[in-house]
Amino acid sequence: MCQLLGMNCNVPTDICFSFEGFSARGGKTDDHSDGWGIAFFEGKGCRLFIDPKPSISSPIAEVVRCYPIHSNHVIAHIRKATQGEIALENCHPFRRELWGKYWVFAHNGDLPDFHPQCMGFYHAVGKTDSERAFCLILETLRQRFPEGQPNVKELYLTLREITDLISIYGTFNYLLSEGEHFFAHCSTKLSYIVRQAPFAAAHLIDQDVTVDFQELTTPSDRVAVISTTPLTDNEVWTQIQPGELLVFQDGLPLKFT
Amino acid sequence: MCQLLGMNCNVPTDICFSFEGFSARGGKTDDHSDGWGIAFFEGKGCRLFIDPKPSISSPIAEVVRCYPIHSNHVIAHIRKATQGEIALENCHPFRRELWGKYWVFAHNGDLPDFHPQCMGFYHAVGKTDSERAFCLILETLRQRFPEGQPNVKELYLTLREITDLISIYGTFNYLLSEGEHFFAHCSTKLSYIVRQAPFAAAHLIDQDVTVDFQELTTPSDRVAVISTTPLTDNEVWTQIQPGELLVFQDGLPLKFT
Repeated sequence: MCQLLGMNCNVPTDICFSFEGFSARGGKTDDHSDGWGIAFFEGKGCRLFIDPKPSISSPIAEVVRCYPIHSNHVIAHIRKATQGEIALENCHPFRRELWGKYWVFAHNGDLPDFHPQCMGFYHAVGKTDSERAFCLILETLRQRFPEGQPNVKELYLTLREITDLISIYGTFNYLLSEGEHFFAHCSTKLSYIVRQAPFAAAHLIDQDVTVDFQELTTPSDRVAVISTTPLTDNEVWTQIQPGELLVFQDGLPLKFT
Repeated sequence: MCQLLGMNCNVPTDICFSFEGFSARGGKTDDHSDGWGIAFFEGKGCRLFIDPKPSISSPIAEVVRCYPIHSNHVIAHIRKATQGEIALENCHPFRRELWGKYWVFAHNGDLPDFHPQCMGFYHAVGKTDSERAFCLILETLRQRFPEGQPNVKELYLTLREITDLISIYGTFNYLLSEGEHFFAHCSTKLSYIVRQAPFAAAHLIDQDVTVDFQELTTPSDRVAVISTTPLTDNEVWTQIQPGELLVFQDGLPLKFT
């Protein structure tokens, strides 16, 4: 299995603190050491760092830990290989273009025997079930909305439908974003926290590091952090329910029915 | 305008030496300081680093200068904006997927009034003529070869055709690779050098740095470096002729007719 980390905020924020704790799980406090990756949206642009080395010893992860990149939507992943060897092409997140936007996807889980057919446009480059699932999601969205991106409710309901279909094959926790909306699906395990005023200090579980967010924020800031398991030990994280698909906007979770 | 740097080799090689000189042109020895980017193929996988900061002061460029990533195909770019503001989404190289492979593209030149229509699949995310040209190349290849990638000669001849069409609009020096072949088109300015045994020392133009390749290579290694203008002052670089499209394989240029 793997672990997921996501961030969605109403102002561009750096993820250094959360990534410090998360990346320790890639070989130090946990054994997710078969590669890692992180994607940052900055406007329409998207940076993607991936490395098949463990996040704890990767020089590129060191830059991400130390160099504050400000973003409204971040998706990160540390890998423990189930399908697909340890190789660059199998590192999450994956990125493709749809409707003139980059889409980014990372998956935690395992989808045995998932080999979708009839892919017209998107083809997996690597050998993971995860990339195949991502390709099917985009393929379905493209076919369903050939004229372009629908409103968020339609998008949500269509994702809900595809997600239910793919979930039949196995465990399918995922994070997905196109730089405007941030989708988080819990199949078995995914938690989140919303940090907003009044801000307080937070202490990591995986490293002995504390940050006082009051010193770094303005009263209108709001940040949601989503993670496979909580990253801090002095805050209350909310478990997303199995089967639940949330859309985060401006640091708040929404759910359409 | 911008500048291009490419590398194609028969064994995975790092580009630290060439990138050291090239990245100095992004704000130190030249004024291409509106962003930069570099893509490395490692097998089917592809890493892409982009940054709208000047390459001379970007912390991510510093990692690329110091951390040897070994690759058979590298494409790098430093930007001096002509079309499209200074923004992450306008940084080269651009990357898309076609036939289950990543394709990477960087452009030096200017294509005024180039706004292709009828793009069925690929849409530009940013605002550059370069990304539109890349999308048109991939769109044409996809339509021409719906069953999958043709042999290298057919691929070359089709690229030749698309390149001639796009070149009508202006200056179109480019580097393109899918991790197996490496295409270099000269519209106005592009040079290359092939380094092979007996290896010698090379001295950069843009930094006072010398590397003795004899100490770092084996007799069977062969590396082609392609650049807008030569990077070293003690080696003989070959100018690619305007209008010429070369395919590099295992560090050697080929040309089909």
